[in-house]
Amino acid sequence: MPRTRLYRDGVLISEGFPVADVSDHIDDAGCVVWFDLCSPTPADLGIISEELGLHELAVEDVLHDHQRPKLDTYESHLFLTVYHVDLDKTSGRLRSTEINVFITKTALVTVRENDHFDIDELVRRWDSTREMAKHGVVYLLHGLLDHVVDGHFDVVQSLDEQIEGLEDELFDGATGNRHMQRRTFEMRKSMVQFRRLVLPMREVVGSLLRREIDIIEPVMTPYYQDVYDHVLRVAEWTDSLRDLVGNIRETHLTLQGYKLNEIMKKITAWAAVIAVPTMITGFYGQNVPYPGFGASIGFWTSSSVIVVASFVLFAIFKRKDWI
Amino acid sequence: MPRTRLYRDGVLISEGFPVADVSDHIDDAGCVVWFDLCSPTPADLGIISEELGLHELAVEDVLHDHQRPKLDTYESHLFLTVYHVDLDKTSGRLRSTEINVFITKTALVTVRENDHFDIDELVRRWDSTREMAKHGVVYLLHGLLDHVVDGHFDVVQSLDEQIEGLEDELFDGATGNRHMQRRTFEMRKSMVQFRRLVLPMREVVGSLLRREIDIIEPVMTPYYQDVYDHVLRVAEWTDSLRDLVGNIRETHLTLQGYKLNEIMKKITAWAAVIAVPTMITGFYGQNVPYPGFGASIGFWTSSSVIVVASFVLFAIFKRKDWI
Amino acid sequence: MPRTRLYRDGVLISEGFPVADVSDHIDDAGCVVWFDLCSPTPADLGIISEELGLHELAVEDVLHDHQRPKLDTYESHLFLTVYHVDLDKTSGRLRSTEINVFITKTALVTVRENDHFDIDELVRRWDSTREMAKHGVVYLLHGLLDHVVDGHFDVVQSLDEQIEGLEDELFDGATGNRHMQRRTFEMRKSMVQFRRLVLPMREVVGSLLRREIDIIEPVMTPYYQDVYDHVLRVAEWTDSLRDLVGNIRETHLTLQGYKLNEIMKKITAWAAVIAVPTMITGFYGQNVPYPGFGASIGFWTSSSVIVVASFVLFAIFKRKDWI
Amino acid sequence: MPRTRLYRDGVLISEGFPVADVSDHIDDAGCVVWFDLCSPTPADLGIISEELGLHELAVEDVLHDHQRPKLDTYESHLFLTVYHVDLDKTSGRLRSTEINVFITKTALVTVRENDHFDIDELVRRWDSTREMAKHGVVYLLHGLLDHVVDGHFDVVQSLDEQIEGLEDELFDGATGNRHMQRRTFEMRKSMVQFRRLVLPMREVVGSLLRREIDIIEPVMTPYYQDVYDHVLRVAEWTDSLRDLVGNIRETHLTLQGYKLNEIMKKITAWAAVIAVPTMITGFYGQNVPYPGFGASIGFWTSSSVIVVASFVLFAIFKRKDWI
Amino acid sequence: MPRTRLYRDGVLISEGFPVADVSDHIDDAGCVVWFDLCSPTPADLGIISEELGLHELAVEDVLHDHQRPKLDTYESHLFLTVYHVDLDKTSGRLRSTEINVFITKTALVTVRENDHFDIDELVRRWDSTREMAKHGVVYLLHGLLDHVVDGHFDVVQSLDEQIEGLEDELFDGATGNRHMQRRTFEMRKSMVQFRRLVLPMREVVGSLLRREIDIIEPVMTPYYQDVYDHVLRVAEWTDSLRDLVGNIRETHLTLQGYKLNEIMKKITAWAAVIAVPTMITGFYGQNVPYPGFGASIGFWTSSSVIVVASFVLFAIFKRKDWI
Repeated sequence: MPRTRLYRDGVLISEGFPVADVSDHIDDAGCVVWFDLCSPTPADLGIISEELGLHELAVEDVLHDHQRPKLDTYESHLFLTVYHVDLDKTSGRLRSTEINVFITKTALVTVRENDHFDIDELVRRWDSTREMAKHGVVYLLHGLLDHVVDGHFDVVQSLDEQIEGLEDELFDGATGNRHMQRRTFEMRKSMVQFRRLVLPMREVVGSLLRREIDIIEPVMTPYYQDVYDHVLRVAEWTDSLRDLVGNIRETHLTLQGYKLNEIMKKITAWAAVIAVPTMITGFYGQNVPYPGFGASIGFWTSSSVIVVASFVLFAIFKRKDWI
Repeated sequence: MPRTRLYRDGVLISEGFPVADVSDHIDDAGCVVWFDLCSPTPADLGIISEELGLHELAVEDVLHDHQRPKLDTYESHLFLTVYHVDLDKTSGRLRSTEINVFITKTALVTVRENDHFDIDELVRRWDSTREMAKHGVVYLLHGLLDHVVDGHFDVVQSLDEQIEGLEDELFDGATGNRHMQRRTFEMRKSMVQFRRLVLPMREVVGSLLRREIDIIEPVMTPYYQDVYDHVLRVAEWTDSLRDLVGNIRETHLTLQGYKLNEIMKKITAWAAVIAVPTMITGFYGQNVPYPGFGASIGFWTSSSVIVVASFVLFAIFKRKDWI
Repeated sequence: MPRTRLYRDGVLISEGFPVADVSDHIDDAGCVVWFDLCSPTPADLGIISEELGLHELAVEDVLHDHQRPKLDTYESHLFLTVYHVDLDKTSGRLRSTEINVFITKTALVTVRENDHFDIDELVRRWDSTREMAKHGVVYLLHGLLDHVVDGHFDVVQSLDEQIEGLEDELFDGATGNRHMQRRTFEMRKSMVQFRRLVLPMREVVGSLLRREIDIIEPVMTPYYQDVYDHVLRVAEWTDSLRDLVGNIRETHLTLQGYKLNEIMKKITAWAAVIAVPTMITGFYGQNVPYPGFGASIGFWTSSSVIVVASFVLFAIFKRKDWI
Repeated sequence: MPRTRLYRDGVLISEGFPVADVSDHIDDAGCVVWFDLCSPTPADLGIISEELGLHELAVEDVLHDHQRPKLDTYESHLFLTVYHVDLDKTSGRLRSTEINVFITKTALVTVRENDHFDIDELVRRWDSTREMAKHGVVYLLHGLLDHVVDGHFDVVQSLDEQIEGLEDELFDGATGNRHMQRRTFEMRKSMVQFRRLVLPMREVVGSLLRREIDIIEPVMTPYYQDVYDHVLRVAEWTDSLRDLVGNIRETHLTLQGYKLNEIMKKITAWAAVIAVPTMITGFYGQNVPYPGFGASIGFWTSSSVIVVASFVLFAIFKRKDWI
Repeated sequence: MPRTRLYRDGVLISEGFPVADVSDHIDDAGCVVWFDLCSPTPADLGIISEELGLHELAVEDVLHDHQRPKLDTYESHLFLTVYHVDLDKTSGRLRSTEINVFITKTALVTVRENDHFDIDELVRRWDSTREMAKHGVVYLLHGLLDHVVDGHFDVVQSLDEQIEGLEDELFDGATGNRHMQRRTFEMRKSMVQFRRLVLPMREVVGSLLRREIDIIEPVMTPYYQDVYDHVLRVAEWTDSLRDLVGNIRETHLTLQGYKLNEIMKKITAWAAVIAVPTMITGFYGQNVPYPGFGASIGFWTSSSVIVVASFVLFAIFKRKDWI
């Protein structure tokens, strides 16, 4: 079933009709059309572009990979790029899906790079606030932005949980673990990429709100304000996560230094404990008539000195907490 | 006793009446109502929302966890979210309590997430400035903000004291202590979370003051200015604490390196002091007719050389401050 | 063939005519002239300067090396400096080519420092958007900026790929490799230089767009907006790369510390495993009648103790993952 | 003698009269009064507050410890908080003294936390610019600010000298010294506290200058501009000091690493120099008929090998600069 | 010959006349006077101040050391402080010379702290643009600023070359060299001081340009814009240098860690290679009838085992690249 919808005066008239039929409704009074394209060909875009009078630069932009949310204003329409973000379940890496949106007075066209973005969920969200449908395109756009930003929220929450996990492991012995190093590395990389997709959202939603672009009716303002508020929270949360990861990294470095110091102390201590008996046996191995040379008393002296010296050293080092 | 209050013309008429009775007074001329909800159900909120004409988005926000102070303006009311912050007595961790506030012309509704926020203390504060009650909701709101920001002050003061404690331990031997590492780590984490709850307060109180939202009468301005001033001081103090913790952390790293150098010097020195006698005894243990082989003179030579070499080495290293 | 072009009313009339002929067309109604100079002598510049009425300071600037993109406004013309950037294929180092541009109402003069900038590609680009030629100088300038910024894009993409390469090597054993250290160093240096040539472009293209300089007709605005958008993306991407390189560098340091700890643990362990048998043979080398002195049983005891002690130590250390 | 002064028409009429007499003069035409309170009781403040019509919040502020310079505007007066800063002579730590100032049209009241601030010096400063006294309160305030900011200058100069001292010690052997570490730590702590007291001064003096508060007559503007200029210089100097301390700290870390590398090289070298003769004596201590066993030639071979091996190793290591 | 000049209607009338004669010309119609003072006494300044009607604060400023470029506006004149900067040829340290400038409508007075600033060069520069002399004081000021900023350029270029030198040494063995550490340290210190003298120049020249101070005629604007452009380039270049030095420093730390790891690996390896033969000779030194005790076969076994074990260990370690 193709992803299409037709509203008239705020009521859903039909959905699932072929994209080709869209042109029949697009100029009807009181009608609002939504349709969705998934990885369309340039030809597909060409047809739609002509139908809706889209600017060639905006259409061209759909075909390129941006990696940056933005809102462009053209004479007859707006062009919005946002990113759906989630974490790949198997690798844990960040996965982003570009969503391009053309916004005219009577139509909303969503163009998805691939099908990682759950369009069914978006439709459900629209249906759950059906009573606002009379606001037309602005209502549809709000549902879309709300859904995308909620996705950002989920990601930042997952990253936060991963950080909590790292924190717990920090004071276990596991920190030296090569595997954990790699996980930390991957997570920091995800955070850099995430910031790049999330921070410009403030500007995008902010400029919708600041009424530079006069499409939002006053009664819808609180709803967009709400989305903006979410965007700010995601941005601030992301910044906090950076600080938390910095805290982990620096504590980790300090713990490494602490361990190194511990190990060096142990080396000194054990080296001394072993070197002293060796020196004593060396003494008794000399071919000179030392006291007890070749006599029973020599053996007992030697052995006693070894045992006593070792024990005393061990006791001293134990006390200094060096062993 | 339910948390409710009714003022008429700046005089406290009654308090502790059931929340259900609120609606009787809410439209009386010259009346101002306060009531408080602790972790209400959606149904509770629904009733109140209808009574006071609250916006659905604001009501929905109460049910979500925000982690960000904010001030939203709706047509008929303001919606404020602030956080009461304290340090948990047993674990020392930061504990935050979300407080949502609906502000209409004649009513102030506080909705607390849980009962960690001491509402009795707030009531006492209001009573201590009873003479300002004639300013109605603005007076109530001032008391609330003042109380919340004072809580932030207490926390930043505690953190400062903890940092002083860390500073004192820094030059004691205790710094290698694993327990202390953990405490430092926890404190830095608390500071990140605290910043996130405190820094947006500047914007919240600032926008109340900038008269964008025209609810504060000129005569109350200095009182809000005073709160704003406190907020700024908390924010600046928090930033100073970051610098102080950075100072501790970096000094700690330098001290660790200093210790490692010390230990390495000691190893070299002791290794030499022990290795030389071992080498000498090895010499006298050879099965070749070295001078003194099998003779008393050999023993005395060997022993003298060992003693003298050890002592000389020890003296040299002592002088160089290596032992 | 000299690089010259003459447009009349948006149609390409002639190209490749000698630079000296330019002056014939420069004041024709509806005519727009482009010509290009590659590392001109001061004398060459002097002639052109007089012909077009260029400001002496702008002409002087051409002869100096700037290392900074900028846009200067003179009474009768604009003066633009941008940098073409690419990576030298053999050394991998950044190579920049200064391009100075004089922009009058009817002429665009490009002055290149050397021929690293592919001017044929620029001509091709112009021809591919031939239908916009009626906008005259603004159209030519757009093609130039678009081409330069696309070059920046290519560089940032290459740097990104190099970083991916470094990331892959990070967890291989290769990181200790001196050669890799040098490559990382070179890449960071390239990034510093690149930032310096790219970040001021925001201001340059931004001030063209902000209409401070009133040369862009409204219909061309989206095209310049598009270039500006590219500039922003390059700038943001560059900043992300810094973060990614920081991530690599810090992970590398942590891995180094981890390796050092590993090595120290191994030293301790092996030193102990070897020192203990040495001590035992020392014991049996004493010239005192220890049990088994000069007897077969002594040999078997000695050998057994050595084997057992070595094996036990090895087993213990293996278990502790120290060997 | 109490700190009081009465000016009439720019001429000093009397000074040192009891504070209680102030009220007699405060409303005289053309009269300007200054008086000073040192750690007053709430009761003292209450009397003065009533006399001058001070706002309760400002009076309350005097009794709290702020740790932040600020300028509050009340309807009938200004309230200024600045900090006198000096370095305690014995401990070298930063010592700050809060000075609260009430500024009305005809009176300047200074309230000092304690007597570390040299009020005599302030009086001398006023007397040295006696000819400006006709500008009344603005003249008094200028003298005060000038004096306070000069104090900041002295502190930043002392810190700079301390840093020069640290720099000199950096390349001496003294850097490993525990005492020096502590001094560096203390100095960085002082700098954090100093910044907190100094940076907000820009805003305080700046807002006096920006004429938001219309008390400065044009003829006095250059004098306040001069103070502002000093404030900026202190702020910039403080920031430079941070960079210089950062330079010291990072150079110190590099030197520590350099030392560690040196020590490790020495250990390797000496360990080898000592281990090789030990191995040789071990060889000649074997109970097997090696060449020279029990013979004079054996002794000479052994001794020669030991001497030659040691000397060769030592020479090699000396050449490699390892010993 | 005193440094004085008199222009009438843009023509140089006389120069080198005594400073005392200046007052004769200062009020002539169409006359512009320049004179220069090198480290004047307060008395000298007093005379000139009276002649030109300079503000006492500006005159006082000349006598103090500022360490901060600034531009002050007084009613009848401007007061400018800039810094000539060069690198001392013997020590390589930064040397700054304060230049104070009084700018009235008809006179430019330069006051130099000492004679490190080459005033002859300035005069030559003025003469090379003689045709602009008709713009009077603005022309003189432009020449001065241009000369000062060119000096900054020379310094930043020298620092850049020094950094290139450090980069070349980085991958040589020389980096552990104490002398190089000191050079790096000195250079970073120079950069901090340089920034402090250069960055405020943006504000100084910028505020001349922004026409807040209405002294620059439109025809001179491009010349000041040109100076401003130079100032920006110096500032940006300085910031790039910081990044480059950071790159060097961090690469150096990584290389140090790499070296330490190398050394530790070598220690382990050589310690093992030497310890094993020692253990074997210990075995053959035992006074127990081991196989080959006192027999030729023992000697050959022992020697073979030693040689083989040493060789095998050496080969293994060589393969692992540990030796």
